[in-house]
Amino acid sequence: MGHAGTVSTGVEARIRESFAAQGMMATLGARLAHIGPGLVRIEAPILPGSRQQHGFAHAGLTFSIGDSAAGYAALSVMPEGHEVLTSEMKIHLLAPAKGDLLVATGRVIRAGRRLVIVQADVHAHAHGRQSHVALLTGTMIPLAP
Amino acid sequence: MGHAGTVSTGVEARIRESFAAQGMMATLGARLAHIGPGLVRIEAPILPGSRQQHGFAHAGLTFSIGDSAAGYAALSVMPEGHEVLTSEMKIHLLAPAKGDLLVATGRVIRAGRRLVIVQADVHAHAHGRQSHVALLTGTMIPLAP
Amino acid sequence: MGHAGTVSTGVEARIRESFAAQGMMATLGARLAHIGPGLVRIEAPILPGSRQQHGFAHAGLTFSIGDSAAGYAALSVMPEGHEVLTSEMKIHLLAPAKGDLLVATGRVIRAGRRLVIVQADVHAHAHGRQSHVALLTGTMIPLAP
Amino acid sequence: MGHAGTVSTGVEARIRESFAAQGMMATLGARLAHIGPGLVRIEAPILPGSRQQHGFAHAGLTFSIGDSAAGYAALSVMPEGHEVLTSEMKIHLLAPAKGDLLVATGRVIRAGRRLVIVQADVHAHAHGRQSHVALLTGTMIPLAP
Repeated sequence: MGHAGTVSTGVEARIRESFAAQGMMATLGARLAHIGPGLVRIEAPILPGSRQQHGFAHAGLTFSIGDSAAGYAALSVMPEGHEVLTSEMKIHLLAPAKGDLLVATGRVIRAGRRLVIVQADVHAHAHGRQSHVALLTGTMIPLAP
Repeated sequence: MGHAGTVSTGVEARIRESFAAQGMMATLGARLAHIGPGLVRIEAPILPGSRQQHGFAHAGLTFSIGDSAAGYAALSVMPEGHEVLTSEMKIHLLAPAKGDLLVATGRVIRAGRRLVIVQADVHAHAHGRQSHVALLTGTMIPLAP
Repeated sequence: MGHAGTVSTGVEARIRESFAAQGMMATLGARLAHIGPGLVRIEAPILPGSRQQHGFAHAGLTFSIGDSAAGYAALSVMPEGHEVLTSEMKIHLLAPAKGDLLVATGRVIRAGRRLVIVQADVHAHAHGRQSHVALLTGTMIPLAP
Repeated sequence: MGHAGTVSTGVEARIRESFAAQGMMATLGARLAHIGPGLVRIEAPILPGSRQQHGFAHAGLTFSIGDSAAGYAALSVMPEGHEVLTSEMKIHLLAPAKGDLLVATGRVIRAGRRLVIVQADVHAHAHGRQSHVALLTGTMIPLAP
């Protein structure tokens, strides 16, 4: 997949509109940090209300922004009017998500007519350093209008 | 795994304490509904702030309570003082999570010394009917004290 | 999914024909042991040429018959003329596959129009005892004729 | 993970010895094509006895060499005397494996003391062109001597 270049204003508007309609993204304080063709980045602070019992980011936060970044990466390469649904997603938690910010970068591995295979990497930022905390791989289903 | 019977008060206290320390569970309004040996159930309302763009439960909510139910099921069969971490988790989203309540039931498939293989099923409740909305399968790492 | 009952002779013939056309199944000495609606069982001996470096069944054998059992379980619930393809499959290897026979039981978790979610359990038989050696969970794509 | 450089002769000998002891690799006609630090490549012809019902490589062949390439990539970064076992592996089948040769490239994503996270890509070669037919992501368990 080519990830360079820019998306059309229609694609960007569609993704921003969908993102804004997700109550969960607001709850988590997440925001769209980048929208490119086949590549979308979502950031979220590691709020007290998004933590697990040791004070690190909860896997649910990591999953939520990783899955959404991957889904919008898929949506960015779909024809006008399409939507995408997650069919399945596997997350590997590589290291404790310590810090104050999580950044999820989703990308398209293979865009088919019936299914889009996607990945996302999630990094935690702490004191100016970042660590790779999760790798997601999954399947999105395109829905025609 | 035998799932019948009851857990010791020590195990129950350990799970309740860990659950209470997870900010994310409070954010999602989740509660521990059942703790048995190798079987834990977590419920959460589908709050406006836990929804995706079509008003159904966000996959992040489904994942969060499914992963936690599976993790506490693993913890329920660990020796005193142990903890568990999710290493990887795959979620299949089987149907839209419509309704007002999600119920995740985690159970142990195989408890080894190094790894515990777990599953969770998530059902959505709407108007007195329930539907099977997700199946999770994953790997927990036991951590000795 | 109801797993009881019998499949039509058309379904059974379709599955037997497809199985017979797979060179890999012959290489592994695998055979169809049971065909029911949404439930298919495949057996294979643990031949010297199907082993890994410690003499146990190779994960490739376990995967091959688990994936095929799951795929044919999906095919057993498809309309006439359809085929199925594996999109993705996750295998958990639960214990060393010691013994002389592997038995894979595939079943349908959810049959949709676009995707069929399947599982398979694989057991090893040794000296009259069986052990649960693998759990597979995956996604099949139905292909209309 | 740094993938450049060469492995010690001890590491290479250990991997070649293990590979030679796998009956399944001989059955499939597979061979070790490259051993580097954290990066191992295995090739196999798409023999008639390794095919599925449409004449393409069977998913079991693709899985077998992908899983082994990933496992040996993990082994290449382990201390002397260690072994690795596959705990779980997910395979995405991206395209039909048409052609006469499959090449699997395994690499280490994260090497921990308890677990090693790995990936493998499998390409099919046909008439001088190659296509990306599978992506595997999984978990290896290091076993100390």
